[in-house]
Formats: sequence, C-alpha cells, structure tokens
Amino acid sequence: MAEPEFDPRWRPTADLAHELAGQFGTPLYVIDENHFRNRIRDYISAARQADPNSEITFASKANSVLAVLKIAHSEGCLIDVASEGELRAALAVGVPASACHMHGNNKSREEIEFALSVGINQIVVDNFEEIKTLAELKATTPLVLRLAPGVLPITNEKISTGQQDTKFGFSIHDGSAEKALLQSLNSGLQVEGFHCHVGSQLLDPEAQISAGQRLAQFAAEMKSTHGFITKVINAGGGRAVRYTNESPIALSNYCQQLAQGVRRALEGTGLNPKLVQEPGRSLIAESGVTIYTIGSIKFVESPSGGTKRHVIVNGGLADNPRPAMYDAKYAVETVAGDARELGESSSATVSGRHCESDLLFDQVMLPNDLQPGDLLIVLTTGAYSSSMASNYNRYPRPATVLVRDSGPVIVQRAESYDEMLAREVLPEGI
Amino acid sequence: MAEPEFDPRWRPTADLAHELAGQFGTPLYVIDENHFRNRIRDYISAARQADPNSEITFASKANSVLAVLKIAHSEGCLIDVASEGELRAALAVGVPASACHMHGNNKSREEIEFALSVGINQIVVDNFEEIKTLAELKATTPLVLRLAPGVLPITNEKISTGQQDTKFGFSIHDGSAEKALLQSLNSGLQVEGFHCHVGSQLLDPEAQISAGQRLAQFAAEMKSTHGFITKVINAGGGRAVRYTNESPIALSNYCQQLAQGVRRALEGTGLNPKLVQEPGRSLIAESGVTIYTIGSIKFVESPSGGTKRHVIVNGGLADNPRPAMYDAKYAVETVAGDARELGESSSATVSGRHCESDLLFDQVMLPNDLQPGDLLIVLTTGAYSSSMASNYNRYPRPATVLVRDSGPVIVQRAESYDEMLAREVLPEGI
Repeated sequence: MAEPEFDPRWRPTADLAHELAGQFGTPLYVIDENHFRNRIRDYISAARQADPNSEITFASKANSVLAVLKIAHSEGCLIDVASEGELRAALAVGVPASACHMHGNNKSREEIEFALSVGINQIVVDNFEEIKTLAELKATTPLVLRLAPGVLPITNEKISTGQQDTKFGFSIHDGSAEKALLQSLNSGLQVEGFHCHVGSQLLDPEAQISAGQRLAQFAAEMKSTHGFITKVINAGGGRAVRYTNESPIALSNYCQQLAQGVRRALEGTGLNPKLVQEPGRSLIAESGVTIYTIGSIKFVESPSGGTKRHVIVNGGLADNPRPAMYDAKYAVETVAGDARELGESSSATVSGRHCESDLLFDQVMLPNDLQPGDLLIVLTTGAYSSSMASNYNRYPRPATVLVRDSGPVIVQRAESYDEMLAREVLPEGI
Repeated sequence: MAEPEFDPRWRPTADLAHELAGQFGTPLYVIDENHFRNRIRDYISAARQADPNSEITFASKANSVLAVLKIAHSEGCLIDVASEGELRAALAVGVPASACHMHGNNKSREEIEFALSVGINQIVVDNFEEIKTLAELKATTPLVLRLAPGVLPITNEKISTGQQDTKFGFSIHDGSAEKALLQSLNSGLQVEGFHCHVGSQLLDPEAQISAGQRLAQFAAEMKSTHGFITKVINAGGGRAVRYTNESPIALSNYCQQLAQGVRRALEGTGLNPKLVQEPGRSLIAESGVTIYTIGSIKFVESPSGGTKRHVIVNGGLADNPRPAMYDAKYAVETVAGDARELGESSSATVSGRHCESDLLFDQVMLPNDLQPGDLLIVLTTGAYSSSMASNYNRYPRPATVLVRDSGPVIVQRAESYDEMLAREVLPEGI
C-alpha cells in the first residue's frame, strides 16, 4: 500500500521532543491539545452534516485523564463511562452526570445506584439482570438497550463485540432484544432507544453501517408491532485510526453512509431518532505519542544467519500492553538525544525493559547510527495506553503531558515509589 | 490426558470462600500462607538434596506483595528484583539489600546507582552499557553475567527468553559472552559467574537443563582459556505449574537432572560454583486463587446452532491480563452464593466486565444451575495477577488476602477511587 499523502497523526518536532524529555523525563505520554480539539470538531461537524440530529459521546475508556475528559466535554461531547470509576473521573473534573452515558456489560447494583443517585443522563442496559435491578430501583432515567445486531466485523477478535454470539447486549436474532424491550416497558422503565457497538479499529465500516441499519430496522419493527417510539439510535464507535499505514474511510463519507443507512431503514415509519456515535480511539489516539529513551542496543547473530539489531527502550508492556495483548503494530520515529543528524535506516526490533520478551515493535526501520540516549517516539498512543497501564515489575506509571499553545503542562503526573507501596499491609508475625 | 491423582493447587473450601467474599468483597486475590511456605521448603529441600551448594531466589516479578516477599525471605529465599521499584519493595518490608539480586535487561544508571548505594548482594549484568556504567561507578558488588545459551524452549514465545536471538544477555554463540567477561574483568569488575533464563511455564525441562549445562561448559572454557574461576551458576527459573491439567516434572527429579548436568560439564575443571535457581511462578502461582462474583448469565443462540452460555464475572483483564495477553488457560471452580448444592455441569464461556470482549475462560465446565451472585474461583493465580494488574475502565485494583492459621488478613488492600484520581492535574483554562 502506498503511503497516503496526508498523515493524520500528531508528533512533536525534534526540538519539542527534546524539551519534553528533558523537562519531564521518559517514558512520557504526550497529547497535543489542538490536535485533539480539532479531531473532535471535525467529528462533530461531519456527524451533524450527515444528520443534524447527531450527538457525539467520547468513550472515556480510551483515555480518561481528567484534562482529556474536560476538553472533550468543552468541545461538545457527552462522555461515555463504562464503570463507576469512569463516571467518578468525569464528575471529578466537573463534567455533570447529565452529560454522561453509563455503559458496562456487568454493572453492579452499587454502580447503578451510584449512577442514578448523581443523575446520569442515560444508562445503556446490557442484560436482564440490569433490567430487574433498574425496575427494583424504580429508575426514571432514560435507558437505551444494547443490542447484538449479529454482524461480524473484520478486526482482532479480542475487540470484536457485535457479532451474534457475544457477551454484550440482547440478541436481535433470538428474540432477546424484543423481550428486553417489553420487559423494560412493562416494568415502567423509560426506554428511549437502542445501542450497538460492533468492534474496534474497523477499517471497513460496512459492519458498523449495517449494524446501524439493523438497529433502525428493529426500531421500525418495534413501532409497527408494539407502537414503541424510538428516540435514540446509538451506532457505537470503532472507526479505525492510523497506527502504521492504515487508511480509514474519510470521516464525512463514513458519517454520510451511516446516517443514510439508518434513515433509509426508518423511511415511512415517522421515527426521527437522535443518531448517536461514541468514538474513543478515533478522537484521541492520533493526538498522542509516547516518548521513550533508548537504553541498550544489541547486535545478535540470528540462527537463520545475519545479524539482528535489538533496540531496548525504558518502557514496555506496563505502559503499553497493546503489542503483547493484540499484536498491535505502531509506527516509530527517532530523535537524536544530542544535536547530531541521524543517518540511514535499516530494520531493527524494539523491545521493552520488562522481564519477559516484551516485544514492542518488530522489524521497524531505525537509523543505523542510533545510540543509547536517543529518543524513540511511538505514534498513535493517545488511546488505550495510559488507561491500560500497569505497575508490572513495579515501574511507576509515566506522566501524561498536554502540549498547549502556552507550552507543555503535566495533566497526569508520574506515579511515585511511595504510591506504589501505599496499599501494602504487613500483618504481625510474618 | 488422565487427571493426575495429586493436585498441587490450593483452593479455599466453600465455607472459606463464602467467608472471604463476605468479609472482603470480590474480586479478591487470595494466597494461602502454609501452601506457599511449603512450596518454598519443598523447593529448597529438593535443590539442596540435588546439590548441597544450592541457593533459591524468589523472582519477585511474579508477586511482589510485601507480605509475600517477607515470607519468601523468612523461608530462606533470596529475592530477585527486576527494577528499582521491586528492590524498594523488598527493602520496604525489611529484606536487606544483601539478600537481593538485581535483574533487568535495561537498567538505568539511576537504578544501578540506587542498587549499589543500598548494598545489593549481586547484579545480573545484561549488556555492555551496564558494564560501562558499572565500571564508571567503580562498582565492587559481585556481578554475574546474563548469557543467552541459545536453546529454544517449548512455551509461549512471549515468555521465551533464552533462545539465541533474544533481547536478553550476552550470546555465547557469537562471542559476546566471552567479550563481556573480559571487558568486565579488565574494567576491574567483580564477576562471579553466569546466569541464564530460557523461558517460563516450561513443562519440558530439557531446555533448562541443557542451558544450565551450556553455562557450565562455558565456565569450563573460561577457566581453561582465561583462568577465570566461576563461583556462581544461575540456571534461572521457569518450571511449569498446573493451570489446568499440566503435569510438570517432579521437583526432585528436575533438580537432580539440572545439578547432574551442570556437575558433569564441570568434571575435572576443579570448579565448584554455587548452583542458583530463581523460581517465581513455581513457588507462588499454585498457592493463590482469585474469587469473583458472577453477574449476568446469558444464553445466546450460536450462529453454528445450539445455545452458548456466557457467564460474566465482576473482574477481568484489569486484574488478570494473562488470558488476553498469552491466551493463558485456567481451571475454575464454583461455590453457590447461598447454601444450595450446585448440580451437573456443562460448557460455558466466562468473560469479564471490561469494555472489550475480555474473554477469560472459554468452554469451561460450570454447573447448569449457576446463578448471579454465585462465586467463581480461579485457581493458580498467585503469580502474574496482582503484579500485572491495571486500572483499565478505572476499576480499583482488588485486595490480596493472606489465609493464615489465625484466619484471613489483608496484605494488600483494595485501591480506592480517590487513589485512582490522585495523579490528575487540571491546568487553568481548559
């Protein structure tokens, strides 16, 4: 595939990379504020152009750094939360509960009670247990039912969620969806519509578009058979971003196709629901990078002949588990630690510092004269990096810095060694 | 494979499981103190029987809860640390630095300086950068060189670390190992011997045994060519445990074979090094379980016909990333939440509560009458669970409880929502 002309990913200049590494240390997560704000504006604008009755919610699981949530909300997004913890994060930064949607495939009674008590805008109901709980709590909060539309997207199976056989939602195919709607209505609950999410990092939008259509068809059926008026169709998120050389469908094109598919399925029904999308990765991933410092560089004779170059960085699976978890690929760039110009590139393997193979980026092109102390910049790490980070090998989690017009500022500080020991309790006599 | 008669794994009785879930909540990590102490005693005894000049160090990356480190040390283990953070954890619980070995494939200068300043017992040197740093710091600490013996174990490639082409250590094959030894000695460093680690969860010990032999052969060569006296051979860890129905080689048999292999390779050299092993998983994994509470249970029509049962628990990839990361398999057991007797079992799929597929245990046998509120107990989670846990979806990390003769006590308390928000900084004007 030829490299497309426009690169949607943000990266720091060499000067800025130096400044960031020098001032804040590495590893370091970096988010560019303007890039992120522009991505949100572009998405909202494309969605409204395709359908004026559109709403965008930011899936906070992708990155729930408080400043990120605040920016998303200030740009007009609602906030999707998938747990009490994510809801508390939104509230902590002043996003009102009335701007939050509550997700989760296994909400506890306590989580539901908390969400209701703070006045959540909407709960996305996943299963019959939740209907029972909401009915017992006499919830008056608007609900949408998460449906499994039975479409199979082309993506990693670990992030494929909308196929017929899934843990998520009520299957349309086997009648669960209709049953859930009737049970909710009979329990006096305020169902407003339907939700689906078919998967993540979807390059081909066909599955998402047909899922949206399938929801709309179901809404049409529910009107004709039960007189149910659907006010919300939520077609989820999942649009791909560019990690290496992916070329996702243009946003305007995607939004048009999605809206048209839904509207076509609703033609003649009189239904005019709000069309909701909930991007996470596609809003924030390309606005962020991770900066590492290169430590050891090894040249190892390969059993198959030739020499392999291993470049080791001062981070790894604890700050970005996606390569180990999904075999995720990333693009990397380098900046010399000093002022020298880096030369020609050849293949190398980048690994992390953790005590297992911790392979990060296999066979990427890196300058031949790379040295310990140079910087490795990993693109497209704005999503699912800090939100999935661990303390494996008892490394403190890195800081997140926001690059603003006025300069870079810390928005999530690095963890301290003391904090990593705060939960330990030593009983007598061990 | 027929289920072996003796099951080496600890699990709580139904009564204890109820007590633990009731008193401490779920999800919950649980470690049995007696089981863990007995595993250490068995290992030390088997190693000493095979070779009186044996030493066992506990690989703290497997589980670095402070009480666990303290127990391991009190039973006579040294402690392996793979980072400054792991070293600080050992120090925090009163394990002296003189009982710690420092690992790591990319130690920073700061980590090395810290380890030297507190008086670390030994540093396992991984690369030429570290030799340079240690020489600059005029380190007098005993060192062992990590070597890549060029053997290929049969295990998951993500935890295979001793093949010829690896990020770890100095390759024997290409001459790096000899070069590293000479460079260290010429720099005035105190090299005492050699280390290798070929991989983890190894059912077939052949690779480990031949790696130990390979180290001993190398030691013999270094004596004959350079007069170097090896005082330490460290053959690493990696012995398998039982997750489902694995039957690892008996410990005594393994220790015998390892010691014999090493001693045979050293015959006639006059060398009599200490034989070190560094088990982590094989000491602690089978002493621990994770207890979850079952939430939603769904019966979904499978596209291939039939109905699939999805059982959802109140935990998942944040508290145990191994199924997502290594496709790791586990055995699960169930205890009714109330006093009822559970009936016959059939196949089910257990998933977690996180907002992706979060498949935990595919097609395990679970009672047909399982209900929300019942407990799911996952065996063999004493290693690489709490030490790899994240806050994904902003779920607080679970507590670890130690089951003692005097009753269960918390040794690592659950995280609070406030703690999860402690690192956030909100700049002006966002």
